[in-house]
Amino acid sequence: MTVPTPDPMDGGLQALLRPRGIALLGISGRSENLMSRPLRYLVEHGYEGGVYPVNPNYEELVGRRCYPALADVPGPVDLVLVLVAADRVEDAIRQAAAVGARAAVVYASGFAEVGPEGVALQQRLAAVARETGVRVVGPNCQGFLYAPTGVVATFTAAADRPLTSGSGVAYVGQSGAVGGSVLDLATDMGLGLAAWFSTGNQADLDLTEVSLHLLADPTVRVLMLYVEATGNGAAYAELARRAQLAGKSLVVLRSGRSSAGRRAVASHTGSMLGDDVAFVLTSRRYGVVLVDDIDELLAVAAVLAAGKPAEGPRVAVVTTSGGAGSLAADQCEDVGLQMPELSAATQARLRPLIPPFGALANPVDVTAQLFNQGAHAFGDVCRIIAEDDAVDVVAVLVTMVVGDAGARLAEDLVATAAKLRCPLLVGWIAGQELTVEGRRVFREAGVPVFGSVGDLARVAARLAPPRHRGTPPPLPAVPDVPAAEVRALLEGPVVDGAALLRSIGIGQPASTLVTSPEAAREAVAALPGRGVLKLAAADLAHKSEVGGVRVGVGPDEAAGVFAELLDAARRHHVPGVEGVHVQELVPPGTELILAVTAGRDGFPPVVTVGLGGVTTELYRDLASALAPVSPEEAWAMLRGLRAWPLLAGFRGAEPADVPAAVDAVVRLSQAAVAAGDRLAEFEVNPLIVAPRGRGATAVDVLVRTTGSREPVGE
Amino acid sequence: MTVPTPDPMDGGLQALLRPRGIALLGISGRSENLMSRPLRYLVEHGYEGGVYPVNPNYEELVGRRCYPALADVPGPVDLVLVLVAADRVEDAIRQAAAVGARAAVVYASGFAEVGPEGVALQQRLAAVARETGVRVVGPNCQGFLYAPTGVVATFTAAADRPLTSGSGVAYVGQSGAVGGSVLDLATDMGLGLAAWFSTGNQADLDLTEVSLHLLADPTVRVLMLYVEATGNGAAYAELARRAQLAGKSLVVLRSGRSSAGRRAVASHTGSMLGDDVAFVLTSRRYGVVLVDDIDELLAVAAVLAAGKPAEGPRVAVVTTSGGAGSLAADQCEDVGLQMPELSAATQARLRPLIPPFGALANPVDVTAQLFNQGAHAFGDVCRIIAEDDAVDVVAVLVTMVVGDAGARLAEDLVATAAKLRCPLLVGWIAGQELTVEGRRVFREAGVPVFGSVGDLARVAARLAPPRHRGTPPPLPAVPDVPAAEVRALLEGPVVDGAALLRSIGIGQPASTLVTSPEAAREAVAALPGRGVLKLAAADLAHKSEVGGVRVGVGPDEAAGVFAELLDAARRHHVPGVEGVHVQELVPPGTELILAVTAGRDGFPPVVTVGLGGVTTELYRDLASALAPVSPEEAWAMLRGLRAWPLLAGFRGAEPADVPAAVDAVVRLSQAAVAAGDRLAEFEVNPLIVAPRGRGATAVDVLVRTTGSREPVGE
Repeated sequence: MTVPTPDPMDGGLQALLRPRGIALLGISGRSENLMSRPLRYLVEHGYEGGVYPVNPNYEELVGRRCYPALADVPGPVDLVLVLVAADRVEDAIRQAAAVGARAAVVYASGFAEVGPEGVALQQRLAAVARETGVRVVGPNCQGFLYAPTGVVATFTAAADRPLTSGSGVAYVGQSGAVGGSVLDLATDMGLGLAAWFSTGNQADLDLTEVSLHLLADPTVRVLMLYVEATGNGAAYAELARRAQLAGKSLVVLRSGRSSAGRRAVASHTGSMLGDDVAFVLTSRRYGVVLVDDIDELLAVAAVLAAGKPAEGPRVAVVTTSGGAGSLAADQCEDVGLQMPELSAATQARLRPLIPPFGALANPVDVTAQLFNQGAHAFGDVCRIIAEDDAVDVVAVLVTMVVGDAGARLAEDLVATAAKLRCPLLVGWIAGQELTVEGRRVFREAGVPVFGSVGDLARVAARLAPPRHRGTPPPLPAVPDVPAAEVRALLEGPVVDGAALLRSIGIGQPASTLVTSPEAAREAVAALPGRGVLKLAAADLAHKSEVGGVRVGVGPDEAAGVFAELLDAARRHHVPGVEGVHVQELVPPGTELILAVTAGRDGFPPVVTVGLGGVTTELYRDLASALAPVSPEEAWAMLRGLRAWPLLAGFRGAEPADVPAAVDAVVRLSQAAVAAGDRLAEFEVNPLIVAPRGRGATAVDVLVRTTGSREPVGE
Repeated sequence: MTVPTPDPMDGGLQALLRPRGIALLGISGRSENLMSRPLRYLVEHGYEGGVYPVNPNYEELVGRRCYPALADVPGPVDLVLVLVAADRVEDAIRQAAAVGARAAVVYASGFAEVGPEGVALQQRLAAVARETGVRVVGPNCQGFLYAPTGVVATFTAAADRPLTSGSGVAYVGQSGAVGGSVLDLATDMGLGLAAWFSTGNQADLDLTEVSLHLLADPTVRVLMLYVEATGNGAAYAELARRAQLAGKSLVVLRSGRSSAGRRAVASHTGSMLGDDVAFVLTSRRYGVVLVDDIDELLAVAAVLAAGKPAEGPRVAVVTTSGGAGSLAADQCEDVGLQMPELSAATQARLRPLIPPFGALANPVDVTAQLFNQGAHAFGDVCRIIAEDDAVDVVAVLVTMVVGDAGARLAEDLVATAAKLRCPLLVGWIAGQELTVEGRRVFREAGVPVFGSVGDLARVAARLAPPRHRGTPPPLPAVPDVPAAEVRALLEGPVVDGAALLRSIGIGQPASTLVTSPEAAREAVAALPGRGVLKLAAADLAHKSEVGGVRVGVGPDEAAGVFAELLDAARRHHVPGVEGVHVQELVPPGTELILAVTAGRDGFPPVVTVGLGGVTTELYRDLASALAPVSPEEAWAMLRGLRAWPLLAGFRGAEPADVPAAVDAVVRLSQAAVAAGDRLAEFEVNPLIVAPRGRGATAVDVLVRTTGSREPVGE
């Protein structure tokens, strides 16, 4: 693990967040120039340390004395904002080091993003950062802000107005444009960010290091990340793990899910997974909330910052409109939320508050007449509902309650939200103009207001932790796959799949390699029943497509089938045919496909299970987890398949031996860990799971190692 | 068809939209009373006809002379706004009739929504409307407005500010609360509604009649509907058909999709469909755009009102931020849109406009520097992209372009949108506060601005018409199922499924009913190969669950299997066992399930096709269409299944006889039409589709008629 531990005493990072003095090297004096803004922002936002504009062309800027050179600055300078063009940046960092600065922000573009010359320039910048020890944010970034000290070291227009602060929410992302939108929308909704970083090209400080540092900061309770590439899986996992340990929330917006790679159709299970499955699984393991849009990022962060996480997916809707309630029910169901009926006790408590033509079950339609009952009637309804054990989230949907009435309702809801044990989400389906006062109330309280039913439902769904439904059966103990033996088996260019399965401890049918029709007949005759004949060849990935497998072969047919298989291999030009495997016929059962693929970019291997046969490919009914997988996780994977009823006993059929399937998944996952960097892909297809108590058998295994160019099958 | 033809000369409806005078019966003089508002609104919004407040307690209200009784009003009164309580409404309508009014709006609640007494009151109101000929909007409604004449006959707070008009968009819905939100949001976004109706309890005028009338109005080009229940399928279909004929757009928001009925799990294909499948299919047939949320309703209507429909699902994204572009690609893929690479020619035309570190392919990242190129640079980029044949929608995503720059960009985009051949959608991912000017520009032009990437993508997806990918193979001619014969076969309490299939013209295996082991042996011996034995019983819905089917039975086994089947029937208490059917074994093929269920609420029957076997139930991989189905539609249904590759020839397998499957679907759909109200459900399961050229065979058929209580199988 090569992830740096954040050192709260790290001088460079402390110099960013708590500098004694800030020099602005090359600050522009023309207000229309973006590069004039950081000086104004520092002054306007109340940074109390020394502010030193450096530009030989001015005596004074924004009321501050301007210095001809960095060396002329009188006070201590911990942080230098480098506002010069790319070709002068290297020199600027050296000057910064010379005056004792320990951190710098480089805004200039013209580095790695513009091609080979820029890459070289960026490498020199990184080298000079290492050499001088000056920690660098950027280049090609929009800088950062840290509210506790008023350091607003950015030129984004989003900082061009009073910034609220104190929400406990911070943001880190590479993209300046997305970051600007986040900051601007956060300010608009009253979510004052504690810290905001645009890390740009990350020549030195990257998203992970900045994030680890912010997580160690007591001001920060919720960290929003915008991630375009997750090149370092180990670092991301460590970040997520530390956030969880610290009891802080990580909310991550990632883009680039729709890569060509994900859309490519391929025949191996591994390739059917998205490129970011390992990223998603790592996030889930550590309780990271993944979102898909900027508004979701902010809304989820705002709700989590209130410190009342949703315990589950059960939503109660309180509304002034039966229509809106009905739309909410639809939208909640669409995103996988539940809208349980409220208990009789809760309904009885609500009845005196709600007019007879309202609705009590859920959605709760309080009707517009509720407002005749006093300023707290709506809040009272919400409080009663939140006391129902069957409710994880209270969602309020207001339609046309405008003007003063809207403002009073907003005050009631803000006060109520603070008292509930669970999140209170507010949707206000009305224009801005008639609801200015009410919206101001919500904004001042930092309560997000959703503009549509769907927006509210989507965010509620993000907040609800995934649940494993049902209770696991008695599961097998955690096995102990012999790691050294597995590694040894994967050494050579050709892997013995049968030996590998034996070593891992996954059952397989007895198999004999025969090379003549007569030997085939004898081998089948020696079986307890009919047999299976399979081509033995290096490339067996598409065995059944070339007619290379025959099931239910009797002794009399064996010689003929042997000849037919070799004939099919010749016609389809299958290379490396060694003969034919004769196996006993595995009794029918539920066929699964198990696969494990090597982790990319430092992520652990990903184990995937699905229903065997063509269904997997047509319906992408797969469940994945990071290796190693625990028996409980393996059970939850199987339970999560849409095909689960086939294992559980569909329409009166006998249930399958789920514990045996779980054991196979766990063992394969352990083998993947043991295989380390030798692993490219293992695939067991099918694993035939017999009825309960009768085990599971791997009929075929495909092994690709990093040393093998072609898949090697058994 | 009992749908009224809208009569443009209908006095009652003309009296609503173009009254010479309006009396406000029982108008309140207290401004805090909602029922005081209609008078103020009529005056403020510039209605030019006679306005006559009627209330004996006032001499004058809002500067208008107030009359003690309706009979005292001097001028002609075409429309009476009935502002009195429920118990006085009946009398009010009679008074209105007495002064010659031809229409009235009843706002009071206390009718059908409050229980039996209210229902009776409402029935009397309906009777008096019929008797007097006064057309009534309401009761329990928020009224209506019609912009061309300034008739603002509502009390919704959403009308409490200047209303823009002239967008050509109208709204009709029962719900007053949802309607209020729609009107308010429309006004906020600059989408001035031509007409707006809340029809409430619909004692007389309902949503359909009002809508038909508005569709006949030249002012209205796009009609938004909010629908909670679609009780009259025929009326809805007629409305949709007339809209299509008139070249006008219908956008429908329906709620109540998540009914308990839809969630109920049942074993028949028909029950697996949502309650609203017929509604959705009817909408699709006539080009109605269905939406799921209020914001979508408005945005789709606004885009359609601009008169530039999207021709397909291909989106080009133009953005100031690479990050936002990447998010857009993800979101577009999530909702089924495509983001094709722009042609080399288009990219060549864009190159001189876009800085080298921008992106040209799609998303097009123009970078913030584009704005240095002049006020029209962004618009120029959009125009060039819209000229690419591979683009159906141009989507602009702006991040932090604020203040004056934002306003100039908005002007450029508004001007550009008017010139493009395709829709230009604008997403602005920034807060309100710094973008007030730019947003005002968009609002004045009636251009919707999306606040998130996802909102834009979801609306773009609604605008894109569904496409059938691929080219149909040579399809069978439209058959002619003998309607009278089919009807006759469905008459009695017991239906002969085999005879029905013969009549419809769907192939089936020869079958013999046997009642003794010996007869079973003989029947199997007479087959060309092995046979299939099936229990013959009235309730065969779950034949395979009780072990009532045996496949591949040879003559020697037949007697034993016969006994086993009867034994299984006894053990499972299967009622009405008549013996055992002996059938020839249908050669293997792709197994489909075909079903047709009776249309409810006046909708036509729905034909559904899916992959046979357990897959259908687990994956809900079904395609549906309204009966009768054309061969092209049947092909598109099959093509739309995720299981389509199995029919097309999966992994080198022989393609199935798709034309034969198409023929069976078409014939079954015709039989459903012929069956008329006798039909409850037909289900063919499985239809075994042999390889190309070798036909399709119905192995089993289940028939339920409206006369049969239990399913009757063959």
